[in-house]
Amino acid sequence: MVKITVIGAGSLAWSATLVRDLCLTPSLRGSTVVFMDINKERLSLIDAFAKRYASEVKANLVFEKTTDRRAALKDSDVVINTAMAGGHSYYENMRMISEKHGYYRGINSVEWNMVSDYHTIWGYYQFKLALDIARDIEELSPEAWLLQLANPVFELTTLISRETKTRIIGLCHGHLGYLEISSILGLNPRNIDFEAIGFNHVIWLTRFKHDGEDAYRFIDDWIRNKAEEYWRIWREDQVNPFDIQMSPAAVDMYRTYGLFPVGDTVRGGTWKYHWNLETKRKWYGSLAGPDSETGWKVYLDMLQYNFDTIAAAIKDPAPLTRVLPPNLSRESVVPIIDSLMNDKVGTYQVNVLNMGVIADLPDDVAVEIPAKVDGRGVHRMRVEKLPRRIVNYVLRPRMMRMEWALEAFLDGGRDTLFEWLVTDTRTKSTEQVNQVIDDILSMPENLEMAKHFK
Amino acid sequence: MVKITVIGAGSLAWSATLVRDLCLTPSLRGSTVVFMDINKERLSLIDAFAKRYASEVKANLVFEKTTDRRAALKDSDVVINTAMAGGHSYYENMRMISEKHGYYRGINSVEWNMVSDYHTIWGYYQFKLALDIARDIEELSPEAWLLQLANPVFELTTLISRETKTRIIGLCHGHLGYLEISSILGLNPRNIDFEAIGFNHVIWLTRFKHDGEDAYRFIDDWIRNKAEEYWRIWREDQVNPFDIQMSPAAVDMYRTYGLFPVGDTVRGGTWKYHWNLETKRKWYGSLAGPDSETGWKVYLDMLQYNFDTIAAAIKDPAPLTRVLPPNLSRESVVPIIDSLMNDKVGTYQVNVLNMGVIADLPDDVAVEIPAKVDGRGVHRMRVEKLPRRIVNYVLRPRMMRMEWALEAFLDGGRDTLFEWLVTDTRTKSTEQVNQVIDDILSMPENLEMAKHFK
Repeated sequence: MVKITVIGAGSLAWSATLVRDLCLTPSLRGSTVVFMDINKERLSLIDAFAKRYASEVKANLVFEKTTDRRAALKDSDVVINTAMAGGHSYYENMRMISEKHGYYRGINSVEWNMVSDYHTIWGYYQFKLALDIARDIEELSPEAWLLQLANPVFELTTLISRETKTRIIGLCHGHLGYLEISSILGLNPRNIDFEAIGFNHVIWLTRFKHDGEDAYRFIDDWIRNKAEEYWRIWREDQVNPFDIQMSPAAVDMYRTYGLFPVGDTVRGGTWKYHWNLETKRKWYGSLAGPDSETGWKVYLDMLQYNFDTIAAAIKDPAPLTRVLPPNLSRESVVPIIDSLMNDKVGTYQVNVLNMGVIADLPDDVAVEIPAKVDGRGVHRMRVEKLPRRIVNYVLRPRMMRMEWALEAFLDGGRDTLFEWLVTDTRTKSTEQVNQVIDDILSMPENLEMAKHFK
Repeated sequence: MVKITVIGAGSLAWSATLVRDLCLTPSLRGSTVVFMDINKERLSLIDAFAKRYASEVKANLVFEKTTDRRAALKDSDVVINTAMAGGHSYYENMRMISEKHGYYRGINSVEWNMVSDYHTIWGYYQFKLALDIARDIEELSPEAWLLQLANPVFELTTLISRETKTRIIGLCHGHLGYLEISSILGLNPRNIDFEAIGFNHVIWLTRFKHDGEDAYRFIDDWIRNKAEEYWRIWREDQVNPFDIQMSPAAVDMYRTYGLFPVGDTVRGGTWKYHWNLETKRKWYGSLAGPDSETGWKVYLDMLQYNFDTIAAAIKDPAPLTRVLPPNLSRESVVPIIDSLMNDKVGTYQVNVLNMGVIADLPDDVAVEIPAKVDGRGVHRMRVEKLPRRIVNYVLRPRMMRMEWALEAFLDGGRDTLFEWLVTDTRTKSTEQVNQVIDDILSMPENLEMAKHFK
């Protein structure tokens, strides 16, 4: 009997998908799923949803809920961490203060980390929470697997792997961007063999084959003959700011760095794609991509909408399967749990310490790569070689920022914030750096953080 | 009989010092010294100087001169490369154009590389010349040692070590800054045991002992009790812009990064120390350090003055030893030649590939470290551990720029210049980047370079 603990389970839409996938995985029946969250109301909602959904689809699973994190973690076999410390409004406040001082999209948004909720330098509480959870696991369920879904997956997987003995796998679904690429090119994903590697949110299509033959030529053909027409329609019709997998930004990255960027990678890049709303529109379409004032609002509204939809369904006596039909999602979380717990070999996209898999990168940095997973754990697979240009201009700068974020969290001190900002292209003076630091650390919520960075 | 070849021998003041040191090293008597330069006039001057100086001090050395580089290199035992492709005015023109577009001190000046003649991104011709020389040696004198004195020593030592089989040692006298530190603290350098490691121009005092005891406490005492008074007088009396070893910038770097910076390291740092002339004055004194419009003019004038002094001495029938008395300099070039050629063990500050000496840094990057040198070559010594803060905030960023400069030189293409600039804190827009690239590549001297970066 497996004990699966979900930290931050109040993230309703996401947890509902997890519940559904668990219910539809017969080999995990009999398991106990413990929901933990600090928000009691949301906790009751997901607990009610899970019990009803399992009963509707006749899945034999036990669901429990608690606000006591340590009790939840004790003797777990698998821990899923999806918790975001602080909530969106906290980060939106820091973004607003940053923008007053000339830091468009916030001090956290930097080269190759433009994703608006991938909280690195200002993620003090998020880092602390994630490390605390990993340390609790080390003590309370040392054999457990920690599936780290909460961002920043790159920083947190590296941090936790270095600082604890907890067995961690960082997960993200960004690599599924290859499906969008295939579909827009008119290729059947079933016939596609792909590999996308690098760091989380900075992965590159190192292999792309269709029926065994190089399919990059379809990308090249598309760019030459179809992209302009596609973009014309795409610009007119855009309703989803995340629909940027084949945007001008992606094509420009391919041209510049030599491989096609996959998933959230397209949201990154240097400021070339991000100076302001106008620049973002040029590269990401009329909604300016998810990481703009326009696109991010759509995203936050969508989160609320998804929450409301599930919450309403729970109050409605109609079957939950009408809102969330009983089909497996594309999330790899439940299949990985199945592989780990029931020793079923599967191949997954994971984030684990490099340990030599990607040459040119240090061993002790979390890379995103394909791996075989079974009852004994994660087995890194051999990967293709990344072009030097991607290593030099993308992975090295991103890795540097990761190390800086970890240093800021582990060592603290004002200098770690100062150094982050003094090399920022938005910075024009020492005063600007000092003022934005002062203002962010003066937020009432940042009392503890201010001590850390004193 | 040893053949020593000096490429770029027309750098008169420097070559005169070399001649003097060679003349005063009895174990190298009988050697042939071949001066090579593309400037015939300067070549004749150094040749005349050398012959007369050797005769005055009765040193049995043979001097030859040629403008034919390959003839000079053939069958050499030691090659000294001091050549700077283009000359100062060429780089000053690029600096001027850069400044028109908002790049104070030029596009080449970036974090931890503020030294005004350490030509990295705009050093296309310099890289090409140095690599050509190393390749010629590979062919014409494969057993020779190349002593790389021409900057950028960090980039060129790494490049040549990676791309050729030529045995190279990068040399710089910046580490002698420990003598200034000792003298200002009132410590006798004879009783000092020091180690300063990192990359060329970014070295940090990892060991500083006086009579076997930690001497950092003298630095701390000095900062606490004497620095203010020292700076008061120093600001009033400053005549040498290079007199910055104990400047407020150095002390601030020590406070920020945890170790004291040595020699040219103090000239580096982030833009915190360099925004404009006013900022530079604050940190480097009234002459604003060597790498400012004021300080650099003093330096270029001094170069001319030194040249004129030696040139005048050659025309004057009075003994040359009056101008350059027969005392060994502090340069390590001739002692290293003596160690290599005559198998005399000596300890020197060298730049060679890391090969594991400094943990946390890749093997194939040139580090500046102490090493034993003898007839068999360079033997890396074990070194102290560098603080994580220096690795993260100084060495990693500097290494990234080195890799970018090498990529720009090896691969070319406009993107390599664009990427260099788009992450620069002086950059405000894509247009600014494109304009400065266009203007620099439009210089008549940059015709070949423009093709490379097309």
